[in-house]
Amino acid sequence: MTKGDAKLTEEYTKLINDGFAEICAKYPDQFPGWVAQGALIAPDAGVREAERALKNGALGVQIYTNIAGKPLDDPAFEPFFAAMNKLNKPIWMHPARAANFPDYLTETKSKYEIWWTFGWSYETAAAMARLVFSKILDKYPNLKIITHHFGGIAPMLEGRIGPGWDQLGARTSDEDLSLILKQLKKRPLDYFKHSFYADTAVFGGVPATHAGLAFYDLDKVVFASDCPFDPEKGTMYTRETLRIIEGIDMPKADKEKIWHGNLEAITGVKFKS
Amino acid sequence: MTKGDAKLTEEYTKLINDGFAEICAKYPDQFPGWVAQGALIAPDAGVREAERALKNGALGVQIYTNIAGKPLDDPAFEPFFAAMNKLNKPIWMHPARAANFPDYLTETKSKYEIWWTFGWSYETAAAMARLVFSKILDKYPNLKIITHHFGGIAPMLEGRIGPGWDQLGARTSDEDLSLILKQLKKRPLDYFKHSFYADTAVFGGVPATHAGLAFYDLDKVVFASDCPFDPEKGTMYTRETLRIIEGIDMPKADKEKIWHGNLEAITGVKFKS
Repeated sequence: MTKGDAKLTEEYTKLINDGFAEICAKYPDQFPGWVAQGALIAPDAGVREAERALKNGALGVQIYTNIAGKPLDDPAFEPFFAAMNKLNKPIWMHPARAANFPDYLTETKSKYEIWWTFGWSYETAAAMARLVFSKILDKYPNLKIITHHFGGIAPMLEGRIGPGWDQLGARTSDEDLSLILKQLKKRPLDYFKHSFYADTAVFGGVPATHAGLAFYDLDKVVFASDCPFDPEKGTMYTRETLRIIEGIDMPKADKEKIWHGNLEAITGVKFKS
Repeated sequence: MTKGDAKLTEEYTKLINDGFAEICAKYPDQFPGWVAQGALIAPDAGVREAERALKNGALGVQIYTNIAGKPLDDPAFEPFFAAMNKLNKPIWMHPARAANFPDYLTETKSKYEIWWTFGWSYETAAAMARLVFSKILDKYPNLKIITHHFGGIAPMLEGRIGPGWDQLGARTSDEDLSLILKQLKKRPLDYFKHSFYADTAVFGGVPATHAGLAFYDLDKVVFASDCPFDPEKGTMYTRETLRIIEGIDMPKADKEKIWHGNLEAITGVKFKS
């Protein structure tokens, strides 16, 4: 990326973020808070704009599971994690993948939108893994990373992340990956279950909601619905997500944490109810 | 693949399959049945050997989620599905992926065994999708495909497979994918939930087991444990899988179906208990 492109990216992101602030100021009942866009494709500018937006009232910063194809543990992005660790504000992590990521080694394109249906949730779990094994979470213990869609596929793969990854290295012969386990502060599964936050947007999936709530600590779960990307292009996902969680046998105080309490705790902002 | 390589593949697979038959004949109490290896890399020979092995007592045939990087809906493999549809015997579908399948477009290798932890389960769901959208399941309605690990990530992504894929085409502008939905006999989600079989091998994952049982029809779930790939290199996964399912509040008759009844129904073989 040229200096000019980076400058343009910064100005463009500023425009978006100032727009969010404006909408929230104008309609506080409908939009009680906003999340800044963090343009890590221009890493220095991304950090600058994240800091500016947070000063300007953003609840946190949204990034993507890859930055133009690069993993989040690329050294270029470390200043962002260092800054967010210092600022102690949450990072929303949104999956990103398109049809140009093939599902088979003999193909060049993902067919039937598999890149979205399965790829996005794969991306989320892979990004979590990279943040764990690169030791970014150990190095920056204040990071509050909110994974979208209950962390994608992570809850379903507890057995692989747990006893499976306790054997890291057993499936690899060209390098000794088992050393990494010794360098980490805890089991890989413990990072996935206890170090990440997760939102509830699973498009009305009942088994997924139960699995997500069973997997993560209750104080790490925040409400989200993915409105308006439902077949009605309206409130269906919000309605269904509310209905499914309301129907779960759980103390009212715990549900309040999911609706707003947990988000208030990590953003330091009190929302009107 | 040359003719000579295909011949070698067939002979090698024969050796394996005859070895399985021999072990089962010798130790019927420990090994009540065997599943043939189907070597689809040499498609014609693969079909021939599958038919021979089934005549020789195999319960079904195991294939992989990709054949040397090719998807299962490649026309080269259709004769196999046609034959299995006619023979009315189950197909065990095992995931296959190695470190040479990268997780990021800028990389050439999957790091930290993510290819195994997440990749294998992605493979399973992607292969299911390809069998659905290519209409192979519609064309060959007797196919009984047993997906490993509760179908990988499928139960967790019910909301994406359901209302998400009901909007197939909405995320694609260079071709009209929505036509495919009209050509299929049912909703994509209905194939995933009601047309596939799934085994219970999730390495002791409790949320995964619950999600799997909630997602698939009860008469489609068959017991499996992935023994001996646990950290003890022994019976841990068998023990844990039994314990978790035993602990679920479900009629005894339903559990019997999972332990052996469903497999008996689709193989036509009665196992001693």
